[in-house]
Amino acid sequence: MSMCTSADCKLCEFLSSKEEIETSFNRVDTQKAKCKFGKEGVCCKLCSNGPCKITPKSPRGICGADADTIVSRNFLRAIAAGSACYLHVVENTARNLKNIGEGKGNVKIKSPQTLNQLAEIFDITESDINQKAIKVADAVLADLYKPRFEKMELVKKLAYAPRYKRWEELNILPGGAKSEVFDAIVKTSTNLNSDPVDMLFNALGLGVATGIYGLMLTNLLNDVILGVPTIRQARVGFRVIDEDYINIMITGHQHSHISHLQDRLIDEDVKKKAINAGAKGFRLVGCTCVGQDLQLRGEHYTEVFSGHAGNNYTSEAVLATGGIDLIVSEFNCTIPGLEPIAEQFKVKTICIDDVAKKKNAKYINFDMDNAEEISEKIISEALESYKNRRNDITIDIPKDHGYDDVVTGVSEGSLKEFLGGNWKGLIDLIAQGKIKGIAGVVGCSNLTAKGHDVFTVELTKELIKRNILVLSAGCSSGGLENVGLMSPGAAELAGDNLKEVCKALGIPPVLNFGPCLAIGRLEMVATELAENLGIDIPQLPLVLSAPQWLEEQALADAAFGLSLGLPLHVAISPFIDGSPVVTKVLKEDLVDITGGKLIVEDDVIKAADELEKIIANRRAEMNI
Amino acid sequence: MSMCTSADCKLCEFLSSKEEIETSFNRVDTQKAKCKFGKEGVCCKLCSNGPCKITPKSPRGICGADADTIVSRNFLRAIAAGSACYLHVVENTARNLKNIGEGKGNVKIKSPQTLNQLAEIFDITESDINQKAIKVADAVLADLYKPRFEKMELVKKLAYAPRYKRWEELNILPGGAKSEVFDAIVKTSTNLNSDPVDMLFNALGLGVATGIYGLMLTNLLNDVILGVPTIRQARVGFRVIDEDYINIMITGHQHSHISHLQDRLIDEDVKKKAINAGAKGFRLVGCTCVGQDLQLRGEHYTEVFSGHAGNNYTSEAVLATGGIDLIVSEFNCTIPGLEPIAEQFKVKTICIDDVAKKKNAKYINFDMDNAEEISEKIISEALESYKNRRNDITIDIPKDHGYDDVVTGVSEGSLKEFLGGNWKGLIDLIAQGKIKGIAGVVGCSNLTAKGHDVFTVELTKELIKRNILVLSAGCSSGGLENVGLMSPGAAELAGDNLKEVCKALGIPPVLNFGPCLAIGRLEMVATELAENLGIDIPQLPLVLSAPQWLEEQALADAAFGLSLGLPLHVAISPFIDGSPVVTKVLKEDLVDITGGKLIVEDDVIKAADELEKIIANRRAEMNI
Repeated sequence: MSMCTSADCKLCEFLSSKEEIETSFNRVDTQKAKCKFGKEGVCCKLCSNGPCKITPKSPRGICGADADTIVSRNFLRAIAAGSACYLHVVENTARNLKNIGEGKGNVKIKSPQTLNQLAEIFDITESDINQKAIKVADAVLADLYKPRFEKMELVKKLAYAPRYKRWEELNILPGGAKSEVFDAIVKTSTNLNSDPVDMLFNALGLGVATGIYGLMLTNLLNDVILGVPTIRQARVGFRVIDEDYINIMITGHQHSHISHLQDRLIDEDVKKKAINAGAKGFRLVGCTCVGQDLQLRGEHYTEVFSGHAGNNYTSEAVLATGGIDLIVSEFNCTIPGLEPIAEQFKVKTICIDDVAKKKNAKYINFDMDNAEEISEKIISEALESYKNRRNDITIDIPKDHGYDDVVTGVSEGSLKEFLGGNWKGLIDLIAQGKIKGIAGVVGCSNLTAKGHDVFTVELTKELIKRNILVLSAGCSSGGLENVGLMSPGAAELAGDNLKEVCKALGIPPVLNFGPCLAIGRLEMVATELAENLGIDIPQLPLVLSAPQWLEEQALADAAFGLSLGLPLHVAISPFIDGSPVVTKVLKEDLVDITGGKLIVEDDVIKAADELEKIIANRRAEMNI
Repeated sequence: MSMCTSADCKLCEFLSSKEEIETSFNRVDTQKAKCKFGKEGVCCKLCSNGPCKITPKSPRGICGADADTIVSRNFLRAIAAGSACYLHVVENTARNLKNIGEGKGNVKIKSPQTLNQLAEIFDITESDINQKAIKVADAVLADLYKPRFEKMELVKKLAYAPRYKRWEELNILPGGAKSEVFDAIVKTSTNLNSDPVDMLFNALGLGVATGIYGLMLTNLLNDVILGVPTIRQARVGFRVIDEDYINIMITGHQHSHISHLQDRLIDEDVKKKAINAGAKGFRLVGCTCVGQDLQLRGEHYTEVFSGHAGNNYTSEAVLATGGIDLIVSEFNCTIPGLEPIAEQFKVKTICIDDVAKKKNAKYINFDMDNAEEISEKIISEALESYKNRRNDITIDIPKDHGYDDVVTGVSEGSLKEFLGGNWKGLIDLIAQGKIKGIAGVVGCSNLTAKGHDVFTVELTKELIKRNILVLSAGCSSGGLENVGLMSPGAAELAGDNLKEVCKALGIPPVLNFGPCLAIGRLEMVATELAENLGIDIPQLPLVLSAPQWLEEQALADAAFGLSLGLPLHVAISPFIDGSPVVTKVLKEDLVDITGGKLIVEDDVIKAADELEKIIANRRAEMNI
């Protein structure tokens, strides 16, 4: 079978050795004939007169919609959907915290400190920890459920003041986030909004809602429930799968949904069940962002968490090792390609959120109230699966895949602590030119920008060579750590100045903030740096790249980045090329609106050149 | 220019005479190359690896999604968006009622009777009319804003008990409607739900939310604000445009948004302004569903409302008469094709809801609190436009287009009243076979099922010929009335039995319930008939056809029809043919689930045959 390539050579070798298994890597070739109209965003399927497509000879759809209307409608709808995904996650996370505060689920709050910080930010005065948890969660939920004409209240409390002011001037401060998404879906329905500029501004507002709630707050609420990240070294890659254990692969983005399970799996009575079945115990194997999040907080879960195996498009191969006994999926990115492989390897799937119900999977609705019961069900399913499948299945785990010394646990808090409790050291290094600037290389992993993680890895190498410190979050992190760029040894690949810094601090030139949700942490770092320097975010020598963005969620992230005023590079155009207006607004005019800028560049060197140039200009403007 | 045909020959003649104007009719030809994959629903644009499409050689997208997953995902998303549109309308309508109750907008409640009925159904005890309005509105809003895990409370109060029971058994009773839509959008995002059956059941639940709230309740709340429909005769077609007046064309679905304006336009001081400018006064010219709704309630607005000119795809031609001075758009279906024609004819557009902001239009956010101010702005814009354009523009209104004697004002209430205050007469006529059965021919107008309104008109003729009484609501009504099928003379086209009934009662064989929102009224009639007969809805000799469905909203309507257990015919497949599972569930399995059935048939006679056969079977089962 033809196979797409990966930056991860050992992954490629492994997949090549499994001829009987079809994965996404094989389907890139069968899907290589791409629809030009879809790629350019000029295909419209909103009504039964369609599909219509814009061509030079047919510049309008039957209804009269032109390329600008069609592209912006498709674009806004995708961002609204992506935003909805993140907002679903923060809503559930807030609800979990509230339920924990109400004593449900037998889960203890792991970081009362973060809860106190949030309570302070939210102006909540309350001494009882559980009541405080309830009030913090209620403040988030209240904002999400406001109607659209009522602005959310926490934005002002959480956003950087100069940004808030700009958003206010632009009239993009979001009303109730769920209603914002809802109305954006209405707006993009048949024969409703036709104004591309209105729709792009709407997208920026959704970006703010996504960023402040879906990203920042989800992390902080998870910190309360699951414990704050601590910098440490960890194992990654297929080597983390230990066949002596009953292995549960977790996929998704809602870590707090498994907060009870992960503690329960190492209780003596549960371990005994595993031992009686012939295993050493239970292990959670990380995959996709929930795995990244567990890795980030790994300090608190050393016994139960075996490590992060890989990102979204590595997950099929993880199954194909035969070492996984059960999949627990609570959100995306549980790719459908897992389904036939799970059948081949006799692996059952349990879905605990119906938005992510997979075909042929068992569905159990997660509710903190039933967390204990759900954990027992998962445990018994895993046990049963282990007993049933292990005799029939060949296990082949490439133990040479991955690394033992990946630096993980980096967050806005742990990084500052690591740097001595303030940002002065980092700012000095930037001012001195030891670090030329910072690039967030974030987002997903896809298979079409040169191959699996290829663009991400190549661009990162190019940036660190130019002494630009790279911060990562999302499936991109999974790709970067599995090829060694997050191990201290990667310092050797950095330019001389950055190498010196890395060696002095014992860190790699690429820092792992964890799941895509942690793009919010990275933007908290940006805010704190700007605050320390007394400048606004668009003045920082800081750029974003989501080179291998994949999903609608990534576009919502992008909208936040652009609202923050950051330059944002992508290697694949977000289906906008067919619209002159959308292209001009995002690539040119936006600089004078939010300060942000979309850069579409599919050549690694050119992309690095442009990002470096922006950093150089910012440095010049700062007189450093 | 090549032109698509219409059932409305005079419309065709008029458009043919306007060579300098491009309308949707001309674009059917330039868009005739249809994408097979889009038509079959097997195109996926949810991620940057795509677009992917399913073919025999590529049965899965890169991620592994197969045709069933892709089709059901596209289908559910369209229904969720359509549902969102209707729910947006009911939310605004409820909010308008609440604001009126609070004394805002200087608008009086026109039907305290309906308000009392609603208060009684909702178990609200309150004597003050304004407080009652607030409480009724709040009950609706509270349901819409519930989280998804809390079921809406009014469903049980409004739905037919046997249906409610079935929905409960099927676990499709909707939680908070806005959250239901929200989660369906999440569900259909990249790498989330892959289970076609789960998504189809979700669609049915959205259908219930759409039907009970977006359809039924919107009508009833509008009845409170705007007055109940009264059966009367009215003028329709281009003849309603009187060039001696300043004409404001209204498009959309949110009639209560113009409740203040329509009363204000006939105040003496405002009339004087028009007279001073050289006109006889102001007139509202109906177009799309808001026009149908005004027509329905026309009894209350004889002075200000000149009549319904035409449906969605007639609106471009209405502009091209030159007789329109201003467009006020508050929702869809304000098709983008209006934009260049409005420029040609110097007609300004004012949008009063940003979800429907049109390119180059002025936007004023409607709020009942500012209703008076907004009306003044619209009036002054209309005046200015009248003065500026009338000298430059040639007016050419085909006064022979349309009819003077269309029967309108039909609702669940006025029809029952007309029939003597109960349904016995109608039931007797059905039992005697004078009326063989009832067909709701509803929904939109499109240009691709044989041409503009062609399928709708031909099918309707075929059904009445077979002694099936046709009820209509939506843009289909606009098409049917403009060709005379809603005038009493149309009795001649009916079969002998139905003709006899029509002549005896002085009614046409096709009854006009008004806007697409009134599909909810039609389903209230079905419910009352079933209740009277002591049977469930799927046992009635009643079928639905939305032959020329156009929009995402129509698919949400369809989901309600299928939840109600009705057979539903469409002439164009709703982009599902690529999925064996979706096709089988909707066309076959559903009969044993809700009692409903999707029928896709693009041949008029075959469609009529199948609908008649179902009616005959139902009659046989009822022993009549």
